[in-house]
Amino acid sequence: MSEFDYDLFVIGGGSGGVRVAHLAASLGKRVAIAEEYRFGGTCVIRGCVPKKLFVYASQYREHFDDAAGFGWDVGPATMDWPRLIVAKDAEVARLERLYRGGLESSGAELLQTRAELLGTHTIRLMSSGKTVTAERILIATGAAPNAHVALPGHELCITSNEAFDLPALPGSILILGGGYIALEFANIFHGLGVEVTVVYRGKEILSRFDHDLRAGLYQAMSDKGIKILVTDVVEQVSKAEGGGLIAQTMTGQALSADVIMLALGREPNTHGLGLDAAGVQTDERGAIMVDAYSQTNIPSIYALGDVTDRAQLTPVAIHEAMCFIETVYKDNPTSPDHELIPTAVFSQPEIGTIGLSEEAAAERYEEIEVYRAQFRPMKATLSGRAEKTIMKLVVDAATRKVVGAHILGHDAGEMAQLLGIPLKAGATKEDFDRTMAVHPTAAEELVTMYKPTYRIRNGERI
Amino acid sequence: MSEFDYDLFVIGGGSGGVRVAHLAASLGKRVAIAEEYRFGGTCVIRGCVPKKLFVYASQYREHFDDAAGFGWDVGPATMDWPRLIVAKDAEVARLERLYRGGLESSGAELLQTRAELLGTHTIRLMSSGKTVTAERILIATGAAPNAHVALPGHELCITSNEAFDLPALPGSILILGGGYIALEFANIFHGLGVEVTVVYRGKEILSRFDHDLRAGLYQAMSDKGIKILVTDVVEQVSKAEGGGLIAQTMTGQALSADVIMLALGREPNTHGLGLDAAGVQTDERGAIMVDAYSQTNIPSIYALGDVTDRAQLTPVAIHEAMCFIETVYKDNPTSPDHELIPTAVFSQPEIGTIGLSEEAAAERYEEIEVYRAQFRPMKATLSGRAEKTIMKLVVDAATRKVVGAHILGHDAGEMAQLLGIPLKAGATKEDFDRTMAVHPTAAEELVTMYKPTYRIRNGERI
Repeated sequence: MSEFDYDLFVIGGGSGGVRVAHLAASLGKRVAIAEEYRFGGTCVIRGCVPKKLFVYASQYREHFDDAAGFGWDVGPATMDWPRLIVAKDAEVARLERLYRGGLESSGAELLQTRAELLGTHTIRLMSSGKTVTAERILIATGAAPNAHVALPGHELCITSNEAFDLPALPGSILILGGGYIALEFANIFHGLGVEVTVVYRGKEILSRFDHDLRAGLYQAMSDKGIKILVTDVVEQVSKAEGGGLIAQTMTGQALSADVIMLALGREPNTHGLGLDAAGVQTDERGAIMVDAYSQTNIPSIYALGDVTDRAQLTPVAIHEAMCFIETVYKDNPTSPDHELIPTAVFSQPEIGTIGLSEEAAAERYEEIEVYRAQFRPMKATLSGRAEKTIMKLVVDAATRKVVGAHILGHDAGEMAQLLGIPLKAGATKEDFDRTMAVHPTAAEELVTMYKPTYRIRNGERI
Repeated sequence: MSEFDYDLFVIGGGSGGVRVAHLAASLGKRVAIAEEYRFGGTCVIRGCVPKKLFVYASQYREHFDDAAGFGWDVGPATMDWPRLIVAKDAEVARLERLYRGGLESSGAELLQTRAELLGTHTIRLMSSGKTVTAERILIATGAAPNAHVALPGHELCITSNEAFDLPALPGSILILGGGYIALEFANIFHGLGVEVTVVYRGKEILSRFDHDLRAGLYQAMSDKGIKILVTDVVEQVSKAEGGGLIAQTMTGQALSADVIMLALGREPNTHGLGLDAAGVQTDERGAIMVDAYSQTNIPSIYALGDVTDRAQLTPVAIHEAMCFIETVYKDNPTSPDHELIPTAVFSQPEIGTIGLSEEAAAERYEEIEVYRAQFRPMKATLSGRAEKTIMKLVVDAATRKVVGAHILGHDAGEMAQLLGIPLKAGATKEDFDRTMAVHPTAAEELVTMYKPTYRIRNGERI
């Protein structure tokens, strides 16, 4: 009989924690998993899933408009926001039930409670005050939107958490931030008929992405009427007379909006978790520091997913979870692989990207080749919509390997997923070239760019 | 001074012929290209391009219906078919102008005439009766829909050629055939509101495709109300009293429809081309026989594209064209590569496929692994649409190579294009497995199917 109540105690019922609890319990381990809010985590409850559903909802306006070019006459369309929320909530609840059901059938014990560390093997269940022990503890508490408490009036603002459940669709929204969450919501609200303004302190939205994607998305969003103010910062938010809010910016503008949303990054959920009591080290951002096997400085305590801030993505957390299981319970030490992670931004147009931006590749390699295509998607020829698809490959001239692929346009996320396979396998530009085109598709551009658009040698375009 | 009027005479202004003429002229060759109808060929004028535009047009009905699940209330929608035709014609004309303009700027001489061979170096221009000579002749006359002259009443039917320009949208259409053209048009017309019946002599539509795609598409089309009659053949077509047509089938059914369309394959355009006069050999289907470098039995005469019936696809004709240029004008003998051609069927749901079907792989390899996922696409959770996406990988167990990939669902064509790259590069299942997922996408299923659904050894499922 073990000296501990559990073999494994998981704190946090999101993508990473649920996967670990499920797999460990299926292996016969005595597992408990504690969640203070809803099982499914950010991804299912107030992230990827409802976000994508909102993206779908917001795309219909373009469909209604574009249909005319294809011979359709469409009657007026109106958005019933509460009905969308009800439908979204039903789907989220269905997924949550699946998560819970899967956990239960695996034999894991589900604890609906906040849990805090009391020591290296000890956890307090906050709902009951009960204390339990475990041989190992896994922290997978995720991250939360930065509340920007330094901003006067921040308490008048919402974050993405609240955006999923606004009681009514606002007439106007001001979004602070220029990262993927800010831009996804800017496009969602715009598509649903809301007047949208984005304020971003940087020179250009989407820092660290390839510059063509950054510039292309900025242009596309501006063209359709989303106002993007760069190199400006909101310094104060206050209530306007007669309703609504006013944001004062650094450059002296007064921006009014019905709703102001903060999309200023996400911070690891480590506050009040008892990390000090257990002696677990965190970095300057509050993220739990782990080694290559997701183990903290305390041997009995592991952490994975967003709370470790390695790459805040659902599939990464799941991958880290599977590596944890291999390492800890299958005697097969497996280190998560964070190289070449394909990602999507569900902006409109969408972004799909993998590997190095042109700028990063130019720094790393002596000479790179850039293959770039910009074209009007076929659908736009009849819809009349002014939009450009951008596709770009970055090749290391020495090894011929494709080290970056970047897409702005329809289905870019699906494309990034599949481009991940050849890039991960180390495919060369010649592997792309010898692939037969599929016509008419957009992706055929990626296998028919036979000559470099330009080269960069020692940082200089030649 | 050459003894010939031209270095190269190209017969046929479609995808293959135009590419050859353009490239050869750009290399300084004296090139003429003869086209009796419109430059651009089947692909641009009455194939891929207008087909895909029709597909887009026909998808809007689903968008209008699906929007309700996302909170939209949409007014009634009606299709103005003549407006669609005008829009399509404008786009086709624009592309034709691009083709013509590109050819002209390359220096090729455009001849608007039918051309026929008089000998191994001699061509008669039928519009003027003039005779010209060329050092080399390239035949790229393409293919045309099988007119099925053996069918009594065939003259009352249309083919895809006419489907693109029907004066009015019919109330009902009967489509003969079960190949990709039959099925693409069945879905187009269904989406535009036409009552559609398909009659196919085989047991299952889409012969030679993977059986899951065949069964999945049949099910999806049947579910949405397209009537598909298999193992039956139309034996006679006649006019019905009071308008419309009646088709009598082998099994004794009398099917009435406003329009009957023949989609019974495409035949090489070799009739009346003077092949006998030049001594060019054709096969039993009338296709011009060529060697690995697109050369016919007559050394001065080459042929490529659909008229050679190797793979009737635009990108294949273009690839053959580029190989021809390398071989003949760049002293770099290059044989077209017809292995692992990814293809799409723009049915609704769409098909994307590359490599071997499960059946073909099971015959070729001692043991294969089949990875199969069937799921409801995320969008359908709110739209309520009953549809299933199918994704499937076929792996040779001995080499671990992925030898086939098959998709039924949204964007399957784009996916097949990009799956072409790793398959062509010889990627293994492990290359797929080590690729990080992009969430939420559909394609992430293709990199997260970690365990085989089943195996087939020596032809038996185990």
